[in-house]
Amino acid sequence: MEKIIEIVPNYSEGKNREVMEKIIAPFKGLDGIKLLILEMDASYNRSVVTAIGEAEAVMRGIVESAGLAAELIDMGTHRGEHPRMGALDVLPIIPIKGIDEKECIELSYIIGKEIHEKTGVPVYFYAKSAKRPQCENLPDIRKGEFEGLEEKMKDSFWQPDLGTIPHPTAGAVAVGCRNFLVAYNIDTDSSSRKKVLRIARRVRFSGGGYRYIQAGAAKLEDRNICQVTMNLTDYGKTALYQAFEAVKMEARRYGINVTASEIVGLVPKECLTSSLKYYLGMDEEEELDLNLDETVELAKKFLLFRDFSKQKIIEYYLG
Amino acid sequence: MEKIIEIVPNYSEGKNREVMEKIIAPFKGLDGIKLLILEMDASYNRSVVTAIGEAEAVMRGIVESAGLAAELIDMGTHRGEHPRMGALDVLPIIPIKGIDEKECIELSYIIGKEIHEKTGVPVYFYAKSAKRPQCENLPDIRKGEFEGLEEKMKDSFWQPDLGTIPHPTAGAVAVGCRNFLVAYNIDTDSSSRKKVLRIARRVRFSGGGYRYIQAGAAKLEDRNICQVTMNLTDYGKTALYQAFEAVKMEARRYGINVTASEIVGLVPKECLTSSLKYYLGMDEEEELDLNLDETVELAKKFLLFRDFSKQKIIEYYLG
Repeated sequence: MEKIIEIVPNYSEGKNREVMEKIIAPFKGLDGIKLLILEMDASYNRSVVTAIGEAEAVMRGIVESAGLAAELIDMGTHRGEHPRMGALDVLPIIPIKGIDEKECIELSYIIGKEIHEKTGVPVYFYAKSAKRPQCENLPDIRKGEFEGLEEKMKDSFWQPDLGTIPHPTAGAVAVGCRNFLVAYNIDTDSSSRKKVLRIARRVRFSGGGYRYIQAGAAKLEDRNICQVTMNLTDYGKTALYQAFEAVKMEARRYGINVTASEIVGLVPKECLTSSLKYYLGMDEEEELDLNLDETVELAKKFLLFRDFSKQKIIEYYLG
Repeated sequence: MEKIIEIVPNYSEGKNREVMEKIIAPFKGLDGIKLLILEMDASYNRSVVTAIGEAEAVMRGIVESAGLAAELIDMGTHRGEHPRMGALDVLPIIPIKGIDEKECIELSYIIGKEIHEKTGVPVYFYAKSAKRPQCENLPDIRKGEFEGLEEKMKDSFWQPDLGTIPHPTAGAVAVGCRNFLVAYNIDTDSSSRKKVLRIARRVRFSGGGYRYIQAGAAKLEDRNICQVTMNLTDYGKTALYQAFEAVKMEARRYGINVTASEIVGLVPKECLTSSLKYYLGMDEEEELDLNLDETVELAKKFLLFRDFSKQKIIEYYLG
């Protein structure tokens, strides 16, 4: 089976499109890798790229791209509102299909090593790839930013995993495996932000709710309704259907109804089918073989998805 | 408002009733403290006592009782199947009413100090009262048991919080504040342990479920049905109604129905009323003023409690 991964590299360039086009060129027109999104933010002076594909091809693409970023971005002159420490600032690597977490962590070590050897940029392994507790959390690594790197790396506690001193113009990079993050919102028929926030508090981890739900309340001013806005940080363990049903259950207390739900961005097909199996009364291990159109239909029916189409399913781009 | 706490001291004597009666005498016939349960286990050679009452009175009682345990139990000759390190082996202190966690932790420090001063027995503060990460988990402290204490305390990592060497006959004691633990089981109409275990996995923390639910499946052989058997380790954050509704929701997948639920042991009234407010459509902060009979009635109605009476509510004993 093909090993499919997603990468979401963040680059410290958010204004000059010409430069960014050069940096992401390695993701274009190649077999086995697909550039999905380029988001440039001028005030952050930062770009976030989403690309997916077969592990080997993605690796070749990102190593190439990291080399171009190190050549074309000068952190010495970079200014922007978002904290940053390198030209390629952070590289999250996400297992999508046919590759488990352990393999993906191993892959992150290989990619980190290749980037370091190509560019000389020191590498911190972070998130699930962290080799030390202090490296689990990106903001801790990045504290002090590019300007503070030289001092920081003198402290043995903050020595990079690869390399010993910052790259003079490209700084340092954090590379690591993390889970796919599903951005999922549930619309209610209530205009009370206060009540919907109470619902959110009850379903989220910090309030005693589900382990992998982060949640808050947001008002949609144009429609005068509130939604529970969520991140599912491990959809394999805390599933979409659990988030959806838990919100319905808590809303009942206030006589509030759930009217729809929406995926923000993209979602792996497996995240949908595993929850559809719940509604179809199937065991977790049973195979559910749906094409993308059928998946969309059933998600609309059971999870009340709105503004959804197969273009929001990652597998659409793997065709 | 009165500060009500529960203590669950464990003593290393489970065979000699005469000795245990002497040790628990300080809990009897005194104002402000009530002995609820004495469970003696001969093969463990260990007794577990449950007492509740006003904080000041409970403190006087347990310090007295710890002194008697140190006099009457000789760990040098103690044999039993349960791991143990002291005559009074562990003293959990649980906030019930009118006292918050912070105050209860402070109280545990005072009680530990008084026990140490009275008996000379060294004290480890554990659970929420732990002052060092290695002391959070009781089995880690107790590892090596009474016989290994002298060696263990030579290691600075395992120095007690109070005292420096083990008491020659009474060993050491762990004292700490923890949450009230609600033992809660939900009956299903299914005889399939496999399916009910799947439900349990989905609702428990380790499987991605609710933060403060531990759960498994148990078969009731006489009735040929299975139940989800649970501990709620912080009912203020993960409530009874959430456990009950989550099990119903997961059971639906398999066409399984929830037929009843039961509290094992005792439960604070607040644990019930906070969940009844959900079913009555009340806000969390609204006052719900029920007497014990009304509380029992509504819990049977909404949570399908079986074998329940006001004698299972802690407040029944607070007169």
